Amino acid sequence: MKSMDVLHLNEWSATVAEDLMANAEVLGCTIEDIGGAQVVDAGVRARGSLEAGQLVALACLADLGDVECSLDRLEGRLVPKVTVSLTDPTAACLLSQYAGWKVAGEGYFAMGSGPMRALRGKEEIFEHLGYHEEPDNVAVGILEAATLPTEAIIKQIAKEAGIHPDSLILLVARTASLAGSYQVVARSVESCLHKLHTLKFDVTTIRSGIGSAFLPPIPTDDLTAIGRTNDSILYGGEVILWVDTTDEAIEVVGPKLPSSASADFGTSFLDIFHRYGGDFYKIDPMLFSPAMVTINNLATGSVFEFGRTEPTLLIRSFFSPVVRKDSST
Amino acid sequence: MKSMDVLHLNEWSATVAEDLMANAEVLGCTIEDIGGAQVVDAGVRARGSLEAGQLVALACLADLGDVECSLDRLEGRLVPKVTVSLTDPTAACLLSQYAGWKVAGEGYFAMGSGPMRALRGKEEIFEHLGYHEEPDNVAVGILEAATLPTEAIIKQIAKEAGIHPDSLILLVARTASLAGSYQVVARSVESCLHKLHTLKFDVTTIRSGIGSAFLPPIPTDDLTAIGRTNDSILYGGEVILWVDTTDEAIEVVGPKLPSSASADFGTSFLDIFHRYGGDFYKIDPMLFSPAMVTINNLATGSVFEFGRTEPTLLIRSFFSPVVRKDSST
Amino acid sequence: MKSMDVLHLNEWSATVAEDLMANAEVLGCTIEDIGGAQVVDAGVRARGSLEAGQLVALACLADLGDVECSLDRLEGRLVPKVTVSLTDPTAACLLSQYAGWKVAGEGYFAMGSGPMRALRGKEEIFEHLGYHEEPDNVAVGILEAATLPTEAIIKQIAKEAGIHPDSLILLVARTASLAGSYQVVARSVESCLHKLHTLKFDVTTIRSGIGSAFLPPIPTDDLTAIGRTNDSILYGGEVILWVDTTDEAIEVVGPKLPSSASADFGTSFLDIFHRYGGDFYKIDPMLFSPAMVTINNLATGSVFEFGRTEPTLLIRSFFSPVVRKDSST
Repeated sequence: MKSMDVLHLNEWSATVAEDLMANAEVLGCTIEDIGGAQVVDAGVRARGSLEAGQLVALACLADLGDVECSLDRLEGRLVPKVTVSLTDPTAACLLSQYAGWKVAGEGYFAMGSGPMRALRGKEEIFEHLGYHEEPDNVAVGILEAATLPTEAIIKQIAKEAGIHPDSLILLVARTASLAGSYQVVARSVESCLHKLHTLKFDVTTIRSGIGSAFLPPIPTDDLTAIGRTNDSILYGGEVILWVDTTDEAIEVVGPKLPSSASADFGTSFLDIFHRYGGDFYKIDPMLFSPAMVTINNLATGSVFEFGRTEPTLLIRSFFSPVVRKDSST
Repeated sequence: MKSMDVLHLNEWSATVAEDLMANAEVLGCTIEDIGGAQVVDAGVRARGSLEAGQLVALACLADLGDVECSLDRLEGRLVPKVTVSLTDPTAACLLSQYAGWKVAGEGYFAMGSGPMRALRGKEEIFEHLGYHEEPDNVAVGILEAATLPTEAIIKQIAKEAGIHPDSLILLVARTASLAGSYQVVARSVESCLHKLHTLKFDVTTIRSGIGSAFLPPIPTDDLTAIGRTNDSILYGGEVILWVDTTDEAIEVVGPKLPSSASADFGTSFLDIFHRYGGDFYKIDPMLFSPAMVTINNLATGSVFEFGRTEPTLLIRSFFSPVVRKDSST
Repeated sequence: MKSMDVLHLNEWSATVAEDLMANAEVLGCTIEDIGGAQVVDAGVRARGSLEAGQLVALACLADLGDVECSLDRLEGRLVPKVTVSLTDPTAACLLSQYAGWKVAGEGYFAMGSGPMRALRGKEEIFEHLGYHEEPDNVAVGILEAATLPTEAIIKQIAKEAGIHPDSLILLVARTASLAGSYQVVARSVESCLHKLHTLKFDVTTIRSGIGSAFLPPIPTDDLTAIGRTNDSILYGGEVILWVDTTDEAIEVVGPKLPSSASADFGTSFLDIFHRYGGDFYKIDPMLFSPAMVTINNLATGSVFEFGRTEPTLLIRSFFSPVVRKDSST
């Protein structure tokens, strides 16, 4: 991770958000003024689009990398794949993309991510990394939420970020939307870094990263979407990291790093969720990471490989139930 | 599809065309003034290039998306693949990319596509979608043709588009050229949307799309090139669409959607063409669509999968006859 | 290749180099003033990054194309792949990217590449192609070297290029660095063109090219890195070229074109290197080319396919020794 002086996460993110806003209608998004803030509906009432998803993901990463969607095959079936390639993955993922801000109040709930978190600075990671961004002209946040925020929520976010609501841009999409699911599966590297941090690996030693995960079919309900996007990372997420540390530091955490290290590994996220009576917080936190991780230690030249993907499980998660009408088989 | 006020198809396309013109020589293209219009030879007498093909395809899509060429394998052999990812596929493909303008006169013939069609507005699709673009400063058209247009043809195009020839930019390539074949196989999604429209599916319900097709080897004659690029879509084209409609609307058209729904499916385009005595219009119009289509209905969460690819047929179409000299086998 | 008037290799390269410099810290690079020149450390003492590698490769190609890194699989294992798609491959690869300038003196040694070679103009290829770039405001060179150049070396480079040291930008990375290995494996097409030129094929007939090669794990020593990046091209490099010549011209050189044409083909580069007592110049120069090459002759429509890849050999080269700690197998 780079020094504080060099990073301008909100400013960089705003450039992407402004691009999204300038082309909002073509991208299937709408813009509302809520309490002075510019709120982009990228997938709540608006339908959004694949490209809106790409821009939301990029804004969420403070523009520190590339996000691409390609057309791939999964067990012979057509499924898009989202690949992220990150400049300074620790800054991009942990200081910006990680959904560490639970925006809640008055019956409203959203997973808050994006660089506005660095203005608030309340999460442990900011203290740990010694990073805090000073409020300037603009703050950008991404909300994974089923509804648009209220004026009171805007006021609360602005206050916590130390900025005027007029300086706030929020990109909002529910999980069960194209842009919403897209920006979640763009978190392959982020989920890996967050897990590494949880395992007390020194994330400042991470130099580069590339990762991919499939974009599942979009259902109508958020719970199914949450299930599928989690499965996408847990059972299909692939990540390569280049780090600069000792082999011991990797050996200590590595075996615990992939999702397969968790006792909960092996059935779909929703099955696990239901097994714990719908209590998200009873699920083993060690489950949340990519299926496969390769780490190349630049300091020693060693290569470590952890985990495996589970394509059959992905197919079941993504395509059941499926209405299948095929004239040719 | 978005409202008329939002789309500036010719203006957006012109930005790409001007990029192509600014780098014409490096891209293997030449520019001629014909009757006042700027005519870019991207593959008639000029040899063109892969990148010229990318820009022609993008201009043809009014810059509403991404067009990428990757290096892929087909049955173990090296073949490039062209992937298109579209913002507002209905506008990009039907209002701009579809080759619906038969430019003909004085012995000249070209398949005309690109946003200049929206200025002319004569085709049924413009009435159906209620779209007509007003002439402004610039019009951009793509001609798939074996020769450059004459002054008389330029005059005729400008007149029909309601602009002065000075405002007209034409990008011209024969099918049997790199840029020509490239821009045709960039039509995977377009062929799907056009077929959907023919089947009376409401194309305004299409929200996003991604598609791919192989770029076949370039022959010297247009007929072989037409055969191969058609086969590329018919037997190798893969498309995913996200729509917002009823499942019934999809179920009605879906089984007829992929190329395999046609009785003519199963042999190369040129075989079919010859079977009908070289009469293009006797070929089953239901044949013209991608090999495989997946539709995700955002309104219901349903996923529909149609068709199949035929790699063996593609290999035969692309590589016969082939001069093969291999030191290693 | 295009006429001299059209190419501005150093100017185009400088645009990329300036982008790299403007974001140096985020990209893991440092900038030093050495004897007036701007020297970017992209992987000597600095750690660099994947993205620094992309920009170094692009600057080395004078920005004449695209360079992309994707996440691929090799025999089931996660390995990145670098794909280059080239506008005017002869200019991009032979006038700029080829490492034809041995920068040496006072105990310093570096493989020099990039468009500064075209200012010096000393290599046979510049005479052969009749190309010489006149010194203007800027010169850009890429050095594959284990140390940064000294003031004396800067002075020597500037003198040979006919420019003032103040106008010189050097991008430096050792092979055993992320950016260093990246920019080497971005040479799939270049190695093919150089081999073609060595075989006396008229490289001015090459119109377009696309190629790919895997990015191996980064070791700590340059010799291992040189071995792996060579293996990446020799045993995994894939290239398609579109040319405009006679079939005879291709038939004469084709069988000698892929690496498999060499008697040394079949074991890792380092094995071969050691077999010849560590004398690089005893290795069969015919070895240095991609594993697989497909040539499509635009003048005749013929397609030629040469060579084969050796994935098992690549795995051995890239992953041995490997520290493998996997909780799941």
